[in-house]
Amino acid sequence: MKLTILGCYAATPRTITNPTAQVLEIKNRLFLIDCGEGTQVQLRKNKIKFSKINHIFISHLHGDHLFGLIGTISTFSLLGRTTDLHIYGPKGIKELILLQLKLTESWTTYNLFFHELESKESEIIFEDKKVIVKTIPLKHRVYTNGYLFQEKPDERKLNVEAVQNYDIHVAYYQKIKNGGDITLDNGTVIENEKLTFDPAPPKSYAFCSDTVYHEAIIPIIENVDVLYHESTFLESEAALAQKTLHSTAKEAARIALKANVKQLVLGHYSTRYDGLERFKVEAEEVFPNVLLADDGLSFEF
Amino acid sequence: MKLTILGCYAATPRTITNPTAQVLEIKNRLFLIDCGEGTQVQLRKNKIKFSKINHIFISHLHGDHLFGLIGTISTFSLLGRTTDLHIYGPKGIKELILLQLKLTESWTTYNLFFHELESKESEIIFEDKKVIVKTIPLKHRVYTNGYLFQEKPDERKLNVEAVQNYDIHVAYYQKIKNGGDITLDNGTVIENEKLTFDPAPPKSYAFCSDTVYHEAIIPIIENVDVLYHESTFLESEAALAQKTLHSTAKEAARIALKANVKQLVLGHYSTRYDGLERFKVEAEEVFPNVLLADDGLSFEF
Repeated sequence: MKLTILGCYAATPRTITNPTAQVLEIKNRLFLIDCGEGTQVQLRKNKIKFSKINHIFISHLHGDHLFGLIGTISTFSLLGRTTDLHIYGPKGIKELILLQLKLTESWTTYNLFFHELESKESEIIFEDKKVIVKTIPLKHRVYTNGYLFQEKPDERKLNVEAVQNYDIHVAYYQKIKNGGDITLDNGTVIENEKLTFDPAPPKSYAFCSDTVYHEAIIPIIENVDVLYHESTFLESEAALAQKTLHSTAKEAARIALKANVKQLVLGHYSTRYDGLERFKVEAEEVFPNVLLADDGLSFEF
Repeated sequence: MKLTILGCYAATPRTITNPTAQVLEIKNRLFLIDCGEGTQVQLRKNKIKFSKINHIFISHLHGDHLFGLIGTISTFSLLGRTTDLHIYGPKGIKELILLQLKLTESWTTYNLFFHELESKESEIIFEDKKVIVKTIPLKHRVYTNGYLFQEKPDERKLNVEAVQNYDIHVAYYQKIKNGGDITLDNGTVIENEKLTFDPAPPKSYAFCSDTVYHEAIIPIIENVDVLYHESTFLESEAALAQKTLHSTAKEAARIALKANVKQLVLGHYSTRYDGLERFKVEAEEVFPNVLLADDGLSFEF
């Protein structure tokens, strides 16, 4: 998986920071997560191919996660897109986008599918051969979902040497990769584990923004490789975090620790702070593997 | 008057160009004209005080003139604005903004007044002691207005020497500045023109975007100091301009010539062209005083 942060600052855009948007690449699929104002420009700056984005996930209907969506949808049309585009987000998002398209008389050149979310339980909202996406119900001032992206396990890797030693015909290779045992002509059964290696373990990524400290998400995100958890504030503003239903860096770290994730990525910083290093210091008091998101940061895991 | 170009490129935003938005300052009033995506960031980059913008004029409901409006309105709230905000634009703009505010549950901290336009004739839509604003009906694919901003004439300037020579009491000065004659104690009438100088002539600015070549606007914009006229294309794309109801640089210059304006400003360039110099060259074949708009350009007149 490869995560590119297009924007990771809260609310008010400034000249040098961008509201929430990120792109997750999994096995040649690009998923756009949230779409604050200016996202299409950030996509260009980060050289992300517009045409490869077929799925957009919106966490909640606040402007700093949403106001770039209509422009992105419109630009896709200007570029002559014909591939289907799927949009996942809270109920209301369809009306919001369709009214804007209607009043601006700008119909899309492609099919636009809306998947409106209302459930307060985690649910599977996307699945194909390689990837599965589930919602992570969050607790914020409006109906909000995080998203859990999981690779499906790859097929088993052929142990070429073993297969040749047993003189197994190539016609059986796919059966072996699918996990099947083999019966030789002499009747001997060769168990699959003697013919294959384990594939690379499937990776997972959890996006959780915006939310107050909310332990109910822990069973859903347990053991993920990377957790992006909002940290709008530092502990010095814990009361404000509680009031506005946001989290502090330390609270994000507590969630990471309790969910046993491998890597925590902090983001959605309030623009009141100068510099981000204090977010890292505060989180690392609780959880060791902390990365600070920043606009334009890209990393593979 | 002082004009600041925040964005002057057509449609698709690029990493280094912005869609249409500009700020006109007249006698300490700031008028925002059009509001493409990213306008609030451009306002910050150009150090324009958000709190001084009380009137926003939207030419038409195409995304590259509009999609930054909801973000601007929302940010005004985040900044705690309490002053009334007036928005002028085509019918439909109120529904468009109110639905977005409703679905994002983000009510404004200030009163928001919509002035929806439907007339196909030029009309006065704003007037105070110093300034008057009229619509300029344009011809585009959707209902579109340009806007004419006119200063009202200043009061006459007192000829201090003359007034003292006639020994006129200070109580009469305002009457004189208002254009009145004075009768001295001996019965002599002193005509106003002996006591005053002409004030600086009132300035005017016409914003015309988007539109096909449309001579019907000439009587409305005649003799303005500065005309901003869209020039999406060069003459080599004249057929495309006609088809999409846009103008070429040469057509913009013809309008400027026929309307006897003092200065033509070109803008709304298609992003298909490398460099802007050809726009100037083409327009100057018809009209001498041509200025190329560019993002961040600011000038007084």
